[in-house]
Amino acid sequence: MAAESAPPVEQMSSVTLNDAVEEAQFSKRVLIRTILGRPDGGAGVAGQKVRVGGWVKTGREQGKGSFAFLELNDGSCPANLQVIIDSSVAPLGQLVQTGTCVHVEGELKVPPEGTKQRVELRVHKVLDVGAVDPAKYPLPKTRLTLEFLRDYVHLRPRTNTISAIARIRNALAYATHTFFQKHGFLYVHTPIITTSDCEGAGEMFQVTTLINDAEKLEKELIKNPPPSEADVEAAKSLVTEKGEAVAQLKSAKASKQEISASVAELTKAKENLSKLEERAKLKPGIPQKDGKIDYSQDFFARQAFLTVSGQLQVETFACALSSVYTFGPTFRAEHSHTSRHLAEFWMVEPEIAFADIKDDMNCAEAYVKFLCQWLLDNCLDDMEFMVKNFDKGAIDRLRMVASSDFVRISYTDAVAILEEAAKERKFENKVEWGIDLASEHERYLTEVKFKSPVIVYNYPKGIKAFYMKVNEDNKTVAAMDVLVPKVGELIGGSQREERYEVIKDRILEMGLPLEPYEWYLDLRRYGTVMHSGFGLGFERMILFATGIDNIRDVIPFPRYPGRADL
Amino acid sequence: MAAESAPPVEQMSSVTLNDAVEEAQFSKRVLIRTILGRPDGGAGVAGQKVRVGGWVKTGREQGKGSFAFLELNDGSCPANLQVIIDSSVAPLGQLVQTGTCVHVEGELKVPPEGTKQRVELRVHKVLDVGAVDPAKYPLPKTRLTLEFLRDYVHLRPRTNTISAIARIRNALAYATHTFFQKHGFLYVHTPIITTSDCEGAGEMFQVTTLINDAEKLEKELIKNPPPSEADVEAAKSLVTEKGEAVAQLKSAKASKQEISASVAELTKAKENLSKLEERAKLKPGIPQKDGKIDYSQDFFARQAFLTVSGQLQVETFACALSSVYTFGPTFRAEHSHTSRHLAEFWMVEPEIAFADIKDDMNCAEAYVKFLCQWLLDNCLDDMEFMVKNFDKGAIDRLRMVASSDFVRISYTDAVAILEEAAKERKFENKVEWGIDLASEHERYLTEVKFKSPVIVYNYPKGIKAFYMKVNEDNKTVAAMDVLVPKVGELIGGSQREERYEVIKDRILEMGLPLEPYEWYLDLRRYGTVMHSGFGLGFERMILFATGIDNIRDVIPFPRYPGRADL
Repeated sequence: MAAESAPPVEQMSSVTLNDAVEEAQFSKRVLIRTILGRPDGGAGVAGQKVRVGGWVKTGREQGKGSFAFLELNDGSCPANLQVIIDSSVAPLGQLVQTGTCVHVEGELKVPPEGTKQRVELRVHKVLDVGAVDPAKYPLPKTRLTLEFLRDYVHLRPRTNTISAIARIRNALAYATHTFFQKHGFLYVHTPIITTSDCEGAGEMFQVTTLINDAEKLEKELIKNPPPSEADVEAAKSLVTEKGEAVAQLKSAKASKQEISASVAELTKAKENLSKLEERAKLKPGIPQKDGKIDYSQDFFARQAFLTVSGQLQVETFACALSSVYTFGPTFRAEHSHTSRHLAEFWMVEPEIAFADIKDDMNCAEAYVKFLCQWLLDNCLDDMEFMVKNFDKGAIDRLRMVASSDFVRISYTDAVAILEEAAKERKFENKVEWGIDLASEHERYLTEVKFKSPVIVYNYPKGIKAFYMKVNEDNKTVAAMDVLVPKVGELIGGSQREERYEVIKDRILEMGLPLEPYEWYLDLRRYGTVMHSGFGLGFERMILFATGIDNIRDVIPFPRYPGRADL
Repeated sequence: MAAESAPPVEQMSSVTLNDAVEEAQFSKRVLIRTILGRPDGGAGVAGQKVRVGGWVKTGREQGKGSFAFLELNDGSCPANLQVIIDSSVAPLGQLVQTGTCVHVEGELKVPPEGTKQRVELRVHKVLDVGAVDPAKYPLPKTRLTLEFLRDYVHLRPRTNTISAIARIRNALAYATHTFFQKHGFLYVHTPIITTSDCEGAGEMFQVTTLINDAEKLEKELIKNPPPSEADVEAAKSLVTEKGEAVAQLKSAKASKQEISASVAELTKAKENLSKLEERAKLKPGIPQKDGKIDYSQDFFARQAFLTVSGQLQVETFACALSSVYTFGPTFRAEHSHTSRHLAEFWMVEPEIAFADIKDDMNCAEAYVKFLCQWLLDNCLDDMEFMVKNFDKGAIDRLRMVASSDFVRISYTDAVAILEEAAKERKFENKVEWGIDLASEHERYLTEVKFKSPVIVYNYPKGIKAFYMKVNEDNKTVAAMDVLVPKVGELIGGSQREERYEVIKDRILEMGLPLEPYEWYLDLRRYGTVMHSGFGLGFERMILFATGIDNIRDVIPFPRYPGRADL
């Protein structure tokens, strides 16, 4: 096993021309990438016998039905393997339908001269077929719009575009982990269910079992109605009666046996009463107390939400383990129907102790460059697909970002540049010191003015969160945003305010209550440390990389107002 | 940048003795691991000037207060760096308090003979101090129980145990990604918010904005009460009146100007009426329809939950991209107060096309072995800490699992073994064919009978989920569980039923409705494929590795009934 540990992933693709194609270790087939992803396009493994499996992209019968060509894709790479099956091997009719799953054995051959392929598979045996009725299959081979595909999230991974995006997304996720691990950052799973509201103002989803509990109770009460007042009164009378009986027997000096039998009856009557009283209290509906919902009866004994950011929580680990990051789902219950918003999306949030805003910018820049270079090194075929079909500039953009130094300007300088620009072009949003930069401003800076990624830093404190470090000018905070062409803001981060008195005042200044932040203040009370961090919207990074326009197409299962399929 | 891409992480630790210690790239310090983690324990870098930062584990003044020793930890490794500060450099009183954060510059020196350390730091300059008031600090240097620490989730990462667990957890997470990437699996982010219930019976958390919306509305209605019936009636009368006025003017052949002025008044009255009628409909409370909650008004226009498993959704990608996995948070709203249950926990769920139950077992075994070997290769210092403090057998257990072939027995054989054993020992739960194995049975098999990891396969179909492949005997399904010493079941998996008619019947047989599973059935309707997968409870793996007893201590922010801190 020792040989299996810590394998450099990139060795996977550096097969030499002499290698035999290797069967995948945990499935009965050779990955098509293992054949077509070779530097020789697969020519060097002609003659070998292999099993492959995949789904038919297109198929056609030829030679008057004597054989069929299938373009087979197994998701391991964008390229299809050309497969040739003789009618003597299997009935061809159902094999050629788009969407059919085939699992076959055969021999790799060099195709006749003049064809595009460097290798093709001659099938000797069909192991399995998952048929498709073309009259019913929702994804015919005609080109389908991304919008149409959103109604088939369970089938759309079979399309070229969604599968290419899935591979790019996978690559960016592993690149993210590799970058931070390489730099000694520890991956921390921050909570999804939270009782803190990071931004102090987020539209949050509530997590509860109260409604379910109320519905269960309601059903139960219908089946088994609560006692009436009369029932309770009757039970009370019985207790009195039994109590009197005991007293009578005692004063009459009855036998021990008689008395204890009578006491037993009294106990039983009392138990029955308390059970009835308990059940009489049961009320259908969500439990209330003092006119408000009684969250003490909710699962966590308080109101709970889905996290909007793991930052505050990951800071607790940064203030102990120094360099950490979180990478997980975050949520916003905003009724935004735009192409840039999701209700559920993934964020990467590193947090670094002993780091100031400059270190933070260095980390953000190195990380984004690393991601771009990783795609160029590991996903060039998928990127070529995106260039051909969606965004001519996608690869050039990755190259540009991977190789250029990011421009760094202060917010104040950025505003001056925008004010100058506003003399010659019209912005929809007015530019003046103090505003939050709008997307059009950000894109002007990165796309028009600098034609490069830009980091804007030192924003007015009035428009930024309470946890950001107040600069010496007392007007700005040590915040920074990374702007890139195509999407504008890709990263937002800051040095965190580590001074107890200052951050406490900032919380109060913003009209927030202190109590929910006491744990956060503890990080400043005890062994406080200079620290900084940032957040990268993972889907935004994929939009940036692929050139896709709508964020709903770069996450496997998009959630937005009115939609949460599957 | 090209040189930075795809770096083999393991090179990080293979520094040679000639290397200069390298400053961390994004913070102003050298990681203590870079010094103490060297094969020479740091002796080879004596003489070098470095900056380090961390938190004081213990400190003491010596030589009548002329200098102080600090044991400094920065979370990069379990070992502390010994730091010596002269009273001429900084006031020592506050530096020596446990929990103090110090950021210092100095020179690495070889300590006098006879001391434990191979290197220590002589401080020349104190850059920063985050002080601690020892009278208030909740984590004094005395040994604290894990139970006590659960009340301080925001500070407990500063303890030796929780930080060691955090590093082990981090290593297992990265090992997970590396294993699957190495084998060509694509990482898929399955949804957290879901409208499907995988198991068909899970206790699920509900995700909603209805309560929040109702509270907002209630406040709004108090500020701005809805119109009374009289208000609406008055508005209606006004419309009638204005309508009559228009009719009168028209029949009186009034001027165009007069008529259009009158029509304008009518229009205004009508608008006012419809506004009032709209507002009159507003009712405080959660919206109802036909006596039930009206989920069409919830955020996703239907009832939504937190996922209990990503399996069904990740199958949609396996049936398109062949080898995939998901690794994310999952949720159960069970009122379990045990040391083995959490309301929020992480699962690793691979799913493989063209794979049967045997491939599935091979994958599970290789994965678990890989994780164990990874910890031996990358976390031996933390594992030694666990052995010393919690579980003498922890490292031996990893070695055993990494190097032994897992025993594989059918459920039927397992039951026979247990029945035999039951003759000599007492199980709390009766053993007979058809039961679900209890934890005591599982642990008997792996700990007592085989003293090895055991995979039990082919379970009775009556106790397993509808999606598992029915075997030819029609009595069992191709399910498998991986049992390991210490925790029992670590992995549960199965070959999936790929036959449309069979799985449809299984759903109905179990009394489940078909409609919510139509999308899942589509995977069998169109291009169906043999496929298999499993789920590993990530926290269970950490319990197994570390020997820690309570699952609440191996996740950064535990969620369980009554508790969701931060």
